[in-house]
Amino acid sequence: MAQTNLRLDARYLEPEASREEVLKWQEDVTLADERLLSGKGRGAAFRGWLDPCALAPDSLLDEICEAADALRSNSGALVVIGIGGSYLGARAVIEALAPDSAQRVYFAGNSISGDYHARLLAKLQSERFALNVISKSGTTTEPAIAFRIFRQRLEASVGREGAAKLIAATTDANRGALLKLARDEGYRRFVVPDDVGGRFSVLSPVGLLPIAYAGVDIRALVRGAAACAAACANRSLDANPALYYAAARNTLYSRGFTVEMLAHFEPRLAFVAEWWKQLFGESEGKEGKGLFPASLNLTADLHSMGQYAQQGRRMLMETFVVVEGGEEGITIPANGGLRDGLEYLAGRTLASVNHEAYRATALAHREGGVPNMTIRLPRLDEENLGALLYFFERACAVSGYLLRVNPFNQPGVEAYKKHMFALLGRPGHEEQTQAIREKVEDGPSGCEITFA
Amino acid sequence: MAQTNLRLDARYLEPEASREEVLKWQEDVTLADERLLSGKGRGAAFRGWLDPCALAPDSLLDEICEAADALRSNSGALVVIGIGGSYLGARAVIEALAPDSAQRVYFAGNSISGDYHARLLAKLQSERFALNVISKSGTTTEPAIAFRIFRQRLEASVGREGAAKLIAATTDANRGALLKLARDEGYRRFVVPDDVGGRFSVLSPVGLLPIAYAGVDIRALVRGAAACAAACANRSLDANPALYYAAARNTLYSRGFTVEMLAHFEPRLAFVAEWWKQLFGESEGKEGKGLFPASLNLTADLHSMGQYAQQGRRMLMETFVVVEGGEEGITIPANGGLRDGLEYLAGRTLASVNHEAYRATALAHREGGVPNMTIRLPRLDEENLGALLYFFERACAVSGYLLRVNPFNQPGVEAYKKHMFALLGRPGHEEQTQAIREKVEDGPSGCEITFA
Repeated sequence: MAQTNLRLDARYLEPEASREEVLKWQEDVTLADERLLSGKGRGAAFRGWLDPCALAPDSLLDEICEAADALRSNSGALVVIGIGGSYLGARAVIEALAPDSAQRVYFAGNSISGDYHARLLAKLQSERFALNVISKSGTTTEPAIAFRIFRQRLEASVGREGAAKLIAATTDANRGALLKLARDEGYRRFVVPDDVGGRFSVLSPVGLLPIAYAGVDIRALVRGAAACAAACANRSLDANPALYYAAARNTLYSRGFTVEMLAHFEPRLAFVAEWWKQLFGESEGKEGKGLFPASLNLTADLHSMGQYAQQGRRMLMETFVVVEGGEEGITIPANGGLRDGLEYLAGRTLASVNHEAYRATALAHREGGVPNMTIRLPRLDEENLGALLYFFERACAVSGYLLRVNPFNQPGVEAYKKHMFALLGRPGHEEQTQAIREKVEDGPSGCEITFA
Repeated sequence: MAQTNLRLDARYLEPEASREEVLKWQEDVTLADERLLSGKGRGAAFRGWLDPCALAPDSLLDEICEAADALRSNSGALVVIGIGGSYLGARAVIEALAPDSAQRVYFAGNSISGDYHARLLAKLQSERFALNVISKSGTTTEPAIAFRIFRQRLEASVGREGAAKLIAATTDANRGALLKLARDEGYRRFVVPDDVGGRFSVLSPVGLLPIAYAGVDIRALVRGAAACAAACANRSLDANPALYYAAARNTLYSRGFTVEMLAHFEPRLAFVAEWWKQLFGESEGKEGKGLFPASLNLTADLHSMGQYAQQGRRMLMETFVVVEGGEEGITIPANGGLRDGLEYLAGRTLASVNHEAYRATALAHREGGVPNMTIRLPRLDEENLGALLYFFERACAVSGYLLRVNPFNQPGVEAYKKHMFALLGRPGHEEQTQAIREKVEDGPSGCEITFA
């Protein structure tokens, strides 16, 4: 069993979430984690992610790698069609671990922008591309639209049979429009598990197929997650950083901290932060509750959001994700003629300067009234990133139970869809259509302000 | 004089920021705008952006276009070195208006990541690139480091004299390390105006040179801003959407709405939202006050942040930026065999479906307790984007005065720098260095939690 070397530095949680205060949650945390594992908590039908090795057993990993290899050898790029959890996990891992993969992975169906999709089609003009369409039902509007468009393009280019060899469908095991089509056409098929919600699905075929296509070692990714899962068997807050994180953020939330910023210092972690925003925002943001999740891409955002973080409304807490080792990378060159005040840094690596920027920021934000903690990864590689993903998933589920919400549903996502279907005149929504069209009519209203 | 066709739809501000409530701010708004224009308000030394034609007169625009053309004809890419306001404005405009420009623009010096800069150098391996280094002093850590690295690479590739022809320095008019170097080496020089802060500098040479390099019509951009400035002469809230926006967000802030989300439906507007976050966050986030700015990239984020927006903690307000016209783009193909529930949309453009998604979202969020308003642009082009940038700048300055802060300073940005210089052992910081190193020492502390 691989070890999990993620560590949590909690020193800057003092005084609002002191060690003493956080440890008071031990009993609640133990109960929450018991409910989670025993299936007695809310949303218990969606715990399929709890055991990474059961979610992605070796046989499935073999099958995914085989499919990825086959697609890779017949294409120069993969277009992944999916939205939400069928998009963010794969993008997060690919950008973090294979940012310049020779086998490019593009994402479609994650918006309804005609401009975006037209530009992507143009980019793929002379490229032989493969398609991975990911949708449990096959009828979610955004990916369904994109799949129509890209499948048409692919079939026009290589014919229907040729296209079938280049398409993989990740969908429900037993039902749905996409499953039927995939069977009829003979697409490669992978399953969106029934017991895993979208935001917890990165280590299922939903995320793993595109991740494998990009050349990332998915076995090591799952191994890292499994190691973290095993380590989570210990429920003592003192010995379980994931549970400590859950308790600390609830401590702060109960004291009026209502926004959590996830901050990192590597541009290629930007989409890990986006994935994290969905995980926590969608799991906890309900019943009028939840920390509002935001991301800081540093040091860039120190020069944009830094002022607010330092001195704005004091309702912020912050979690840093810091990579400690790995590439030392570029060294700052000496430069006698240039009086840029940097001569004392000549010969230092960017990594070492970046690390001091982190330490300075954590201290400055603490002094400015932003309690913060740091999750440290020894390196940015498959095993550690797998562990980190699991760390957040486990922490999120427990944190949701501590907040007394169902961390596994997302009832609010339906609201805009319902209105959109009515506005679009979807069959079956005729009654609502007329009413809502009158309601949202674009024409001049008493509430439109124009420049006189 | 070009007209400004930006409009503000305020219908969904009811009831918390009803028309009646917003109009109560008229007197305060008039005073704030008078103070702004007369230079009697706080931070009055930084109002150089108020008149776009004075900030970027025709002669300067000619000079910038000439320099951009010369750089373009001698390079395949431009590396822009800058951070904060010397980065976000240019990136926002270029991604919005020239997302696939043949003359690629890359950004460096906006982080201290060794990985990021190593990958960028590798990408430029066989590319003849030009450099635009943007720094008032020349000593801001991030861009100074990047400039050392990229200048060295350029000189190694084309020699010192060759490099000098490919480098443009945008810096202080009269002093500083970068100015001296630029003079000595004979770089092209442009001025960071003394009376314009970074986050208000997009329509100065800071933003305009890289924007012009990307092929955007900077004259039209400035023309649009100037039209908006002229329209802002009318201080009646009823006839000035920028001032109405400032009053409405202060109305909501005073009623406990503490987070503002800027939402849009076009992926290429993502960095306009990032630019907006800096503008408002840095201008208002001080003295323990200010709306926390966040962005929503829709419809993608409806499937991640949408749940929180709909049902999370009720402290959110939202501003949509919606492009009404322009490319109709792709049409959804008919597809007899595919039972994806989309047949009723066959033949419709993505643009029209995307617009219904916006209308559905604005209504759903209103119903969920998120007061929101919409800024409508007739098209996404130079004139309208220029107008939008000015709209936000003007609204931001007035909004800051309404909040009773100095919207033009950023004292909090120094905190992390001070600690970083001490940690890095910068000459002159010796005294602090020892003290802070002990304080932040990474070694095991009572507050580190590891997996047992």
